[in-house]
Amino acid sequence: MIKVVLLGTGNVATHLFEAFRDSENIKVIQVYNHSSDSLSAFEGKANTTTSLSSLVDADLYLLALKDDVIADIASKLSGKKALIAHTSGSVALNALQPCSRRGVFYPLQTFSKSRELSQTDIPFCLEAAEKEDLEILKRLAKEISGKAFEVSSEQRKKLHLAAVFVCNFVNHLYAIGEDICNTNDLPFEILQPLIQETAAKVSHASPFLMQTGPAKRNDTSTIEAHLSLIASEENKEIYKLLTKAIQSQHGKEL
Amino acid sequence: MIKVVLLGTGNVATHLFEAFRDSENIKVIQVYNHSSDSLSAFEGKANTTTSLSSLVDADLYLLALKDDVIADIASKLSGKKALIAHTSGSVALNALQPCSRRGVFYPLQTFSKSRELSQTDIPFCLEAAEKEDLEILKRLAKEISGKAFEVSSEQRKKLHLAAVFVCNFVNHLYAIGEDICNTNDLPFEILQPLIQETAAKVSHASPFLMQTGPAKRNDTSTIEAHLSLIASEENKEIYKLLTKAIQSQHGKEL
Repeated sequence: MIKVVLLGTGNVATHLFEAFRDSENIKVIQVYNHSSDSLSAFEGKANTTTSLSSLVDADLYLLALKDDVIADIASKLSGKKALIAHTSGSVALNALQPCSRRGVFYPLQTFSKSRELSQTDIPFCLEAAEKEDLEILKRLAKEISGKAFEVSSEQRKKLHLAAVFVCNFVNHLYAIGEDICNTNDLPFEILQPLIQETAAKVSHASPFLMQTGPAKRNDTSTIEAHLSLIASEENKEIYKLLTKAIQSQHGKEL
Repeated sequence: MIKVVLLGTGNVATHLFEAFRDSENIKVIQVYNHSSDSLSAFEGKANTTTSLSSLVDADLYLLALKDDVIADIASKLSGKKALIAHTSGSVALNALQPCSRRGVFYPLQTFSKSRELSQTDIPFCLEAAEKEDLEILKRLAKEISGKAFEVSSEQRKKLHLAAVFVCNFVNHLYAIGEDICNTNDLPFEILQPLIQETAAKVSHASPFLMQTGPAKRNDTSTIEAHLSLIASEENKEIYKLLTKAIQSQHGKEL
């Protein structure tokens, strides 16, 4: 049994809390947040506190907190003998430096409070100062996921960057598609199969090899026609830049 | 029974041919291509020809051809009394002008020869000069798909543009993610659940409302850190432009 104190009540904390509840070998014994409002969702399910000095003893203090408060909260936990780990993609392991046992437990996934996720396919990126602590994090990940990857702080920063491209930026391109549908009296639903298939395609093949479209074909008449259809200057810039990028990657091959 | 002569042997033609073969109410009675090489895949499955003057009588001549040859081939079929339809996203219905019965049968999906697709969720964008011909195209779509949308030439051009954003450009962002993984000794597999979930999320919600990430949060320290990690000038430009676009869409809200 791994006894966990969870610090934070945001999307990541909420999803991890639910996942841990389904595991017989993990018990979240307390949830901390500095404000009591956001703890209400956890009441009745776990002991809650707004005071760091009231934290109970545990095997792991898991900091599912905003990046900019992690180091500060960690310094306040430096007296603990248990493992202290954070869940951030972009904060280095060293940010937990005052703590004697330090780890990272970063779930590489996009979380929304409103959406249930199957935890079984979330890759957890793990790092720890000590081998035994890495083993604890691996057990934790395997209890709720099955996919654990050992990832250094340097690699994790790059992964977080990659996640911005394949998740946040991709979503903005979906939003442009939605906007084009809305302004032309078309249901966004009509783009759905294309969106899902484009994602599904790369689950078994390299996206570089899967590239299609007018930029890849160097089909200048379609590219010109498209540019003339785009009303927004910003979207025009995005179209031009991504077209140029695809062409430079694929050497303007035909 | 709708008797179809299929012109073209590319990805769209191949997928439509396979779908039509599974339907009891559609029969592809002939496949045309100007070169015999690419017809070999159809031999034994259908009558084939390289000569437009040898086309047999049919209810529908379906032009699954490159955009720039559609008008030319259509003009050579102008004597036919049957319906002539093309499958292009960006060619107007008027390109078939010399033909008396004109239609568009555009499948809004990304096709690869190497990948089997479930035809049941492909949206077909339909247009015809005459109502009765629209009904034929609807029957055709419903036989193999179940999703038929009436879409004008103007709307279709905009949809094709939207498809470039949500498919071709999205795929390029996946390729950037893959490249970041490759250069940092990380398996691209690690990004898969994030890619699939980002796509799945917008199947039931507006991508505008689903936007997350440092740009949306206006998290300038993460944005600066990311920019310093990007080696390629082109990818840096893409990061900057998409960050700015998300911020302007979301009014730099926190």
